[in-house]
Amino acid sequence: MPATRLRPCDAQLLGLEAHPDDPSVLSFLVVPHLCRTDGRFYGGAALAVALAASEAVSGRPALWSSTQLVATADLGARVRVDVDVVAAGRSVSQVNVRGTVDGQLIFAAVGSTASARDGGLYGVGQVMPRVAPPEESEPWMGPRRRRAEAESGNGGAALAMPPSTVGHHLVSEHRDAPILDATGARPGHMTLWARLTGDWPSGPVMSPATLGFLADMVPLACSRACGVEGAGTSLDNSLRIGEPVDTEWVLLELDAHVAVGGFGHGQVHLWSPDGRMLATGTQSAILFSIDDFIERRTAG
Amino acid sequence: MPATRLRPCDAQLLGLEAHPDDPSVLSFLVVPHLCRTDGRFYGGAALAVALAASEAVSGRPALWSSTQLVATADLGARVRVDVDVVAAGRSVSQVNVRGTVDGQLIFAAVGSTASARDGGLYGVGQVMPRVAPPEESEPWMGPRRRRAEAESGNGGAALAMPPSTVGHHLVSEHRDAPILDATGARPGHMTLWARLTGDWPSGPVMSPATLGFLADMVPLACSRACGVEGAGTSLDNSLRIGEPVDTEWVLLELDAHVAVGGFGHGQVHLWSPDGRMLATGTQSAILFSIDDFIERRTAG
Repeated sequence: MPATRLRPCDAQLLGLEAHPDDPSVLSFLVVPHLCRTDGRFYGGAALAVALAASEAVSGRPALWSSTQLVATADLGARVRVDVDVVAAGRSVSQVNVRGTVDGQLIFAAVGSTASARDGGLYGVGQVMPRVAPPEESEPWMGPRRRRAEAESGNGGAALAMPPSTVGHHLVSEHRDAPILDATGARPGHMTLWARLTGDWPSGPVMSPATLGFLADMVPLACSRACGVEGAGTSLDNSLRIGEPVDTEWVLLELDAHVAVGGFGHGQVHLWSPDGRMLATGTQSAILFSIDDFIERRTAG
Repeated sequence: MPATRLRPCDAQLLGLEAHPDDPSVLSFLVVPHLCRTDGRFYGGAALAVALAASEAVSGRPALWSSTQLVATADLGARVRVDVDVVAAGRSVSQVNVRGTVDGQLIFAAVGSTASARDGGLYGVGQVMPRVAPPEESEPWMGPRRRRAEAESGNGGAALAMPPSTVGHHLVSEHRDAPILDATGARPGHMTLWARLTGDWPSGPVMSPATLGFLADMVPLACSRACGVEGAGTSLDNSLRIGEPVDTEWVLLELDAHVAVGGFGHGQVHLWSPDGRMLATGTQSAILFSIDDFIERRTAG
């Protein structure tokens, strides 16, 4: 019964439960906090579901998942989650995950879960950038809100654009944390603090799934490297897991790789406040400047 | 007929052709240059096949692929390659690829192919490190050969360990190109020049597939970040495509992210000699020190 093996924070965030029609598989409802602000299923939630379901079915902690976003699902839809353990060795299980609504593919994931090996190699190749702590950082406004504020004057921001009633901001918070070291500055390199908000079960709230849920911000960095404020439609969300640390705040260190012909790739490193690498992710997306993006979302 | 839409360099390198039993799908034989030096199917070749087959079936250039390595295939086996286009939009196709031998899954890939969009965003977020040109760089010896040379004295290297008669070195060459900028030096950050060797059809020899074939080196960087010379068993090979440039030599800029409990993650940026970003890849692997690695390979 995979539902009983879910981490409590994952079960609460994602609403994963036995499927009403087939209790041997998992499923969840697309509720408002699992959507983007336009009311359609959020890519970071698909990655989170793939990671949590892989753990529950294989019985091992997630090591990585590459989750391809195939189609969107509407608010209120029930998504069936099938996990296929295609290989299981002494320390690693290889898993495939498919999320479907009425037989239509919504997301497909490949990935591994793994049990740590005694005496296995340990090391970190990167260093966390220096930033102000979350308590001293300002709320982060996405490019749409920033545009609205600029157009309406400083005092009119709230009037110009009230917060959406759907979106992952209903259960999460991001704060702007500019990098303090100017050495090697590049436009697509940026950092945000992130955490889950609201009441959580006692016990850890950080898991591979909740990290994946918080980290879906790479297209922002990619569009900055193209010289514009923008966003994107993600084609996938991929995450590779490092040190398991329970922490309230996570630093998202975003960086752009390359964009050509409107398609961009970039990465995100996830750090605990004391500088341990929790995970690292990559993503490809169709990129838009914020003007194009507003037009596209408005047009539906 | 997907075989007719393969790039000539991919068809030659990978031997992709219509399956003798089912001409509507692609297949290939596991020949010596598609193996690791231990005579088993090479992960970089699985990624290359997934990229080339995705292009041939969807009719669009590859944008990214995450190729999960599920089981190995033996020398001489015929691998059937099924490509499923699970969504096709105005500019992007989402594809799933499965490589099987007699119905057993060898690799599974998710990815996209994409047609460049007019006026689409363009930008690069990274800068190529400074290195000596390939003509001034020494042949690269893998950790096994380097160990053999150290043990036998300088002159005895060739005697101690003749080149294997199977392996991707039969069609490729790597050269050691130390990074010349010491700023921000870290042990897992290293660079190698790579190219295909032998006779090639006229026309470009660089494609998403051939780049993927050359780039499967990330575990080296991961083990260095753990303080040892080592290698790994890859769990996946993932590549995201940037600028399409035809070039003989490619600079592989490897970097380690994090390793915990014997499992490591890292990246590779692929650069043309004039500093254009051709692609960027990531990989997760079971890591070994070279001592463990030799013991494991010897034990089979």
